[in-house]
Amino acid sequence: MTTGTVTWVETLERRVRSALEAGDLETVRTLLIGRHPADVADVIDRLDDEDQVTVFRLLSPAQAAEVLDETSSDATRELLEQLPPAEVGDLLDRLPMDDVAEILTEDVPDRQQALLAEMEPDDAAEVRSLLQYPPQSAGRLMTEKFVRVRPEMTAAETIAYLRLVDPEVETVTDLYVLNQAQQLVGVVSLRAVITAAPERRMDRIMSTQLVTVTPETDQEEVARLVARYDFLALPVVAPSGRMLGIITVDDVIDVLVQESTEDVLRFSGIEGGPELDQPYFTVPILRVVRKRVGWLLLLFLAETFTGSVLRFFENELAQVVALSFFIPLLIGTGGNTGAQTVSTLIRGLALGEIRLRDTWRVVVRELGSGLLLGLLLGCVAFGRSLMWGSSVQLSLVVGLTIVAVCTWANTIGALIPLVAQKVGIDPAVVSAPLITTLVDATGLAIYLIIAKVLLGL
Amino acid sequence: MTTGTVTWVETLERRVRSALEAGDLETVRTLLIGRHPADVADVIDRLDDEDQVTVFRLLSPAQAAEVLDETSSDATRELLEQLPPAEVGDLLDRLPMDDVAEILTEDVPDRQQALLAEMEPDDAAEVRSLLQYPPQSAGRLMTEKFVRVRPEMTAAETIAYLRLVDPEVETVTDLYVLNQAQQLVGVVSLRAVITAAPERRMDRIMSTQLVTVTPETDQEEVARLVARYDFLALPVVAPSGRMLGIITVDDVIDVLVQESTEDVLRFSGIEGGPELDQPYFTVPILRVVRKRVGWLLLLFLAETFTGSVLRFFENELAQVVALSFFIPLLIGTGGNTGAQTVSTLIRGLALGEIRLRDTWRVVVRELGSGLLLGLLLGCVAFGRSLMWGSSVQLSLVVGLTIVAVCTWANTIGALIPLVAQKVGIDPAVVSAPLITTLVDATGLAIYLIIAKVLLGL
Repeated sequence: MTTGTVTWVETLERRVRSALEAGDLETVRTLLIGRHPADVADVIDRLDDEDQVTVFRLLSPAQAAEVLDETSSDATRELLEQLPPAEVGDLLDRLPMDDVAEILTEDVPDRQQALLAEMEPDDAAEVRSLLQYPPQSAGRLMTEKFVRVRPEMTAAETIAYLRLVDPEVETVTDLYVLNQAQQLVGVVSLRAVITAAPERRMDRIMSTQLVTVTPETDQEEVARLVARYDFLALPVVAPSGRMLGIITVDDVIDVLVQESTEDVLRFSGIEGGPELDQPYFTVPILRVVRKRVGWLLLLFLAETFTGSVLRFFENELAQVVALSFFIPLLIGTGGNTGAQTVSTLIRGLALGEIRLRDTWRVVVRELGSGLLLGLLLGCVAFGRSLMWGSSVQLSLVVGLTIVAVCTWANTIGALIPLVAQKVGIDPAVVSAPLITTLVDATGLAIYLIIAKVLLGL
Repeated sequence: MTTGTVTWVETLERRVRSALEAGDLETVRTLLIGRHPADVADVIDRLDDEDQVTVFRLLSPAQAAEVLDETSSDATRELLEQLPPAEVGDLLDRLPMDDVAEILTEDVPDRQQALLAEMEPDDAAEVRSLLQYPPQSAGRLMTEKFVRVRPEMTAAETIAYLRLVDPEVETVTDLYVLNQAQQLVGVVSLRAVITAAPERRMDRIMSTQLVTVTPETDQEEVARLVARYDFLALPVVAPSGRMLGIITVDDVIDVLVQESTEDVLRFSGIEGGPELDQPYFTVPILRVVRKRVGWLLLLFLAETFTGSVLRFFENELAQVVALSFFIPLLIGTGGNTGAQTVSTLIRGLALGEIRLRDTWRVVVRELGSGLLLGLLLGCVAFGRSLMWGSSVQLSLVVGLTIVAVCTWANTIGALIPLVAQKVGIDPAVVSAPLITTLVDATGLAIYLIIAKVLLGL
């Protein structure tokens, strides 16, 4: 029994490494027999390229296929390049076709057609049809292997039929009732079939309250539906009503983890992309720099506006050097307030709690809470500035600026994600650093205008 | 069929509201019959307090219980306070006991004992035993209602037994094989039972490769295991091996969504808490301010150190006013770089890709990428400063500071989450604003020291 994955996998990795060093491949093979594919994949991910292939070839074809489904992008690519194409074709044939579609698009896009040619024609055709759907859509996540039954089948017939169903079929928690036109008319749980009287027909026990998606539905919407209604699988139906496949809850969990990683990274300005699922240490450092530098440069250039603002007020700054002492404090507070609002808005929009038509309600709300926060922090700032020995006038300038900047940052932090949503940009792209940078320049202008007026500069 | 929840629920809400305004409760009742509890809960969440109770009382007891399980904290509290205690007791009896434990701790902590007294003694006892486990632990998420079978039962006996099982049992995708001592010895999928020969014994078809957790396991670890191994349910086992319950995948999805919300909000410095699951508009504005102001104040006070640093270099700033033009640019770039590193580290730690013993490897790696980023941005800064008409010396100061600040921010942004983890603080608490604030003061000191030396001030 396992309690605590990390130690479990670490121990396995250590043992595999020492057997590899001793050249004892038989021990490596024995160590990996019957292990969960996710654990074996973790070990392989951490090995050097050559060892990866050596260890992978020790696995039985069935286990190898499952492991291939779990390895990181880099390891998968390496394995698919080193193994003979025919062998790769056999491995891919054993996987769920939605996972094959993912591997072929994300890990080896350059060899998509070559590898499809090595697969069984049926499987290759299924993958090709999945690849027609847009990336990150329901169509890409679905499997065509679900259990179809007819409305007129009895419980006894259904149980007899289940014994014949292809063992590759992923989930048999629910059976899907299709009519002659292959349209979905109901869902029956396996449990209902077993507990029903043997002669009872499917159309008498099936549920007809169906929630479905089309193959074009975005994967985030799929995840939202599954999370909301506690489904184990979600049927994918063409506009004609024809049932195309199901999306299983394990794929949805992967989507949730991936989207949440993307959100956190994007939120601090790191670009997404297929490498997102790669373990920290396996991403080459130059690629890390490339993924981070674009956003940093953009923010850097935006931030040069603050320089222009300050140059514009050069005389005032030269007259009262003490004004510059408060610059980091003021822009820091504005940035932090704005970041809080942006993250609240992004979550609210993602969860569907906030809609576009609520824009003015949101803005009024955030303006109000910004003003309240500003008043509280402004009083503290006024006191702190006096304690520092600044003049009452200067302290007043600082306090008032905090009130204005908090209100402004809160309002703009609410408006920008809403505007992004409106013009069709994912609001999560409008990250906290972007708001911070915007608030920096405008906040400084507010500060120096208040100073000019109150100090009579 | 539903495609796109938002419009679906919006339409329902509009209809319910207009029927309520017309005083036509019969229409409201008809509108809600057979609707999914998550949808009904959404509508109730958005109504005024009085209407909430009115609408809720129109539901059948079975639907009412399921809806109560889905309403937001505020609505649940309101409903539980307005309904007669005996009626509340009946409703709670119908829910999964892990959900009752959650409602009693998070929504009505003050009335826990009173409401337990209204429940069936068996159910109340189960809730009491769940409440003994720490919050956010596996024990709190588990249900005791799972299907137990004996190793010597045949497939036919098992199927006959399934017809007798309490319909309240949540998941019957897997059956758990327990020995005389109630210890878990294997798991059998319902599908394996159905497709096995009728006389085949459970101990011949069960899987003995088990992954389990103890009731004290943290819910994040539970979520990680389920995501990793694609489980639909995870058994919870006492240290003695006695099986206590199962955690179902729908609870795990809720944990994932909740943790991801918490991560995003925390990352910009908003405290968590039981209100996190409340829809945006239902949180009173004063509570929003209270949840945000603490963190803002802390950062504000930390940020006053930047003032002290600048005061310390008052002479230098007075001599070269142009030095102050670059303050926002330099601290902004440092903050953005640090934030990227923190978010990368937090994800790596959360996913188990980075371990504490990797500390030095991480620091060296981040020092390296910080230096690279710094060199790239430093060159741009040097050029930009020259273009602005600054002297070569001042531009050199700016460029060198960028190199130093990026390297420093990247290193400190990597170290702090690792140190937090080491001393037992959740690294996610070490949010981007905290790093930004730390980098601000130190970055300024670096800037002004370099300026002092190079400009000979």
